[in-house]
Amino acid sequence: MKISARNVFEGQVSALVPGAVNTEVHLTLPGGVELVAVVTQASVRELGLAVGVSAVAIIKAPWVVIDAGAGDLRFSARNQLAGTVQSVSPGAINAEVSIALPGGTLVHAIVTQEAVAELGLAPGVPARALIKASHIILGVRR
Amino acid sequence: MKISARNVFEGQVSALVPGAVNTEVHLTLPGGVELVAVVTQASVRELGLAVGVSAVAIIKAPWVVIDAGAGDLRFSARNQLAGTVQSVSPGAINAEVSIALPGGTLVHAIVTQEAVAELGLAPGVPARALIKASHIILGVRR
Amino acid sequence: MKISARNVFEGQVSALVPGAVNTEVHLTLPGGVELVAVVTQASVRELGLAVGVSAVAIIKAPWVVIDAGAGDLRFSARNQLAGTVQSVSPGAINAEVSIALPGGTLVHAIVTQEAVAELGLAPGVPARALIKASHIILGVRR
Repeated sequence: MKISARNVFEGQVSALVPGAVNTEVHLTLPGGVELVAVVTQASVRELGLAVGVSAVAIIKAPWVVIDAGAGDLRFSARNQLAGTVQSVSPGAINAEVSIALPGGTLVHAIVTQEAVAELGLAPGVPARALIKASHIILGVRR
Repeated sequence: MKISARNVFEGQVSALVPGAVNTEVHLTLPGGVELVAVVTQASVRELGLAVGVSAVAIIKAPWVVIDAGAGDLRFSARNQLAGTVQSVSPGAINAEVSIALPGGTLVHAIVTQEAVAELGLAPGVPARALIKASHIILGVRR
Repeated sequence: MKISARNVFEGQVSALVPGAVNTEVHLTLPGGVELVAVVTQASVRELGLAVGVSAVAIIKAPWVVIDAGAGDLRFSARNQLAGTVQSVSPGAINAEVSIALPGGTLVHAIVTQEAVAELGLAPGVPARALIKASHIILGVRR
């Protein structure tokens, strides 16, 4: 498995919630964190997605929004993963911020240096990773 | 409110257009600009979205496409915000371009340095920010 | 046409697959590569999308995921474009990777330097560009 996305989470499908057009796929990671992805029903069939199947959730780091507020906002994003900042790697304009979730899963986000300063992102700071369900690509081994 | 996204627009819900699966939420910003976001009907209920409610639209700068053409193209993107380039901050590969909309709202986009050169992006140049409705996260204060 | 996105592919609409809410638009590029975009039915009407119409598919480079594996994974992403890495332009944190598809179309992706190293991305390496259909903006000339 050689995927360029910084976030490639291996887990097991724990629920499928079919809608009129798309299906919500719930993926539970080893640490117990649950991700929700929205994919087409055609993808569900083609990938053989069913409860218990092993799958990977692929999420590029620039798609992750970080909320470091005091929980004063609720969001439409389906995935709101609470954890603690583990590291901040600064670049010229952007920085890569890694958030450790309960169970040890690391979520990587690319945000601007300005955001790092404004939000006071540093190791130990509590933060949530917001990820839209429609931004997740699912993968299944052949 | 501590959100890493460069674009966090506060406004008021001005219309809700329910569909079969999702709902289009129209958010009017203080300067009169209207944004359209698509969220699930579950989110509409959970966030208590209704006409008149205050909400924020969260849009990461890498999600914004800039059109600096003479209006010769029409786009499928639901949000096509016309304004004027206010600033261009160059980095190594990317640049951050800020577009001022009527009413003063600034939209921030991350584009490549190549795009800045090819499009002639500089303060004063007219430009449109293209944003897919499905790329907007909505937030509501508790 | 002055669009900031690194990927602006001109092609012809080759099929429309209407769904309950959205429509899948198939765009065939001059080299024969087919892209699938999902847009609202309102966009189909407003842009006059129909088989044979010329259109452009707009895809920002940070939205493209690269798979350089041995084909051991299947993905939910609707677009899985197989080609060969043509160039890698390194930056501070990120790199721009260009993948040549059959027929000569170049797909540009922004990935981290870490991914370039881990995946062994270099000219001549086979790779696939994964692009979600919902991440494509369509444009039509007036």
